[in-house]
Amino acid sequence: MYLRCLNELEDHGVRTVSSQALAEQFHLNAAQIRKDLAYFGEFGVRGVGYYVRDLRRHLRQILGLDQKLRVAIMGAGNLGLALADYPGFRQEGFDIIALFDNEPNKIGLHSRSGVPICDIAELKRRARRDGISIAVLAVPAQAAQRVADLVVASGVKAILNFSPGALQVPTDVKVKGVDLTVSLESLSFYLARGESGDT
Amino acid sequence: MYLRCLNELEDHGVRTVSSQALAEQFHLNAAQIRKDLAYFGEFGVRGVGYYVRDLRRHLRQILGLDQKLRVAIMGAGNLGLALADYPGFRQEGFDIIALFDNEPNKIGLHSRSGVPICDIAELKRRARRDGISIAVLAVPAQAAQRVADLVVASGVKAILNFSPGALQVPTDVKVKGVDLTVSLESLSFYLARGESGDT
Repeated sequence: MYLRCLNELEDHGVRTVSSQALAEQFHLNAAQIRKDLAYFGEFGVRGVGYYVRDLRRHLRQILGLDQKLRVAIMGAGNLGLALADYPGFRQEGFDIIALFDNEPNKIGLHSRSGVPICDIAELKRRARRDGISIAVLAVPAQAAQRVADLVVASGVKAILNFSPGALQVPTDVKVKGVDLTVSLESLSFYLARGESGDT
Repeated sequence: MYLRCLNELEDHGVRTVSSQALAEQFHLNAAQIRKDLAYFGEFGVRGVGYYVRDLRRHLRQILGLDQKLRVAIMGAGNLGLALADYPGFRQEGFDIIALFDNEPNKIGLHSRSGVPICDIAELKRRARRDGISIAVLAVPAQAAQRVADLVVASGVKAILNFSPGALQVPTDVKVKGVDLTVSLESLSFYLARGESGDT
């Protein structure tokens, strides 16, 4: 979130920012900002605040974004195609190199932004040749574990999982699940509170 | 997250659960669980823990999920179509009633699971007739504000926004942004840490 804030400030030509100003602009708490950022080092300068460009570079380095990470998307259905063209991934420097699917009539096609759809049988070879670091799972629930096994066998150590349900993977593979329903539930909570007063 | 845990327990026929058992099964902290749940009332029973079905019903009520909320999705591109068929929304009781788009060749078609694609010119009439509570924005960034304005004009008070960038809405409308890049960045952080030791 801080990185997103700093991106916006740099886009607007802002060179320095205080924790107070960051707090006001982004509806955060100044003390929390100082604490969060201090966790990674001493970035603040007394009387100045933060140098936007430096802090942004530091955060990108901490997040590992200074190296372009190569990402493959498993499943060229609507979700996979949407993710392949999701502008935020590219903006933060992720390189979406391919979609993988097993439907012969999809293989050889491209997403709207030009990401090629490859045969999932090619995954192992492509993962090694192209240095794929992260696999995004966008396949139906019943195929998720099988595809995760293929991803693991191809040597990829990080999985972003959009399919529901837990995956079994070796301990050296990191899985991050994305649950889109949580966001909808938080809106439901907001609406329920509004309708029943201040409970 | 607690609701997702309880769903799973109820599916497996579990009738009662202690905060300790919840903590172990779902890699949480027992004291945090008791504190979080106590915030909404006294649900725990000494010597028993929690009654799974009762606690689940309470949480659903708190989240406003005891009433079926009607949801419309703006934009019948890949993302909109993927969200219309996302199984998690239906499982938690959200009713995805329609996709809205302005491309004449899409209007009248259906998503794979049968959600109809309607003309966005119909939004205001449909929102009132069908009681749409939540609009999901899955349109390109440059169209997001224009579509948000249409949503607001149709009387919908909650927006789940998948488009990048902030939206201007009246104070009685709640916007929740979904930033899919954050999840990918957390995996990048994991990989960067792994490669550089224990920093």
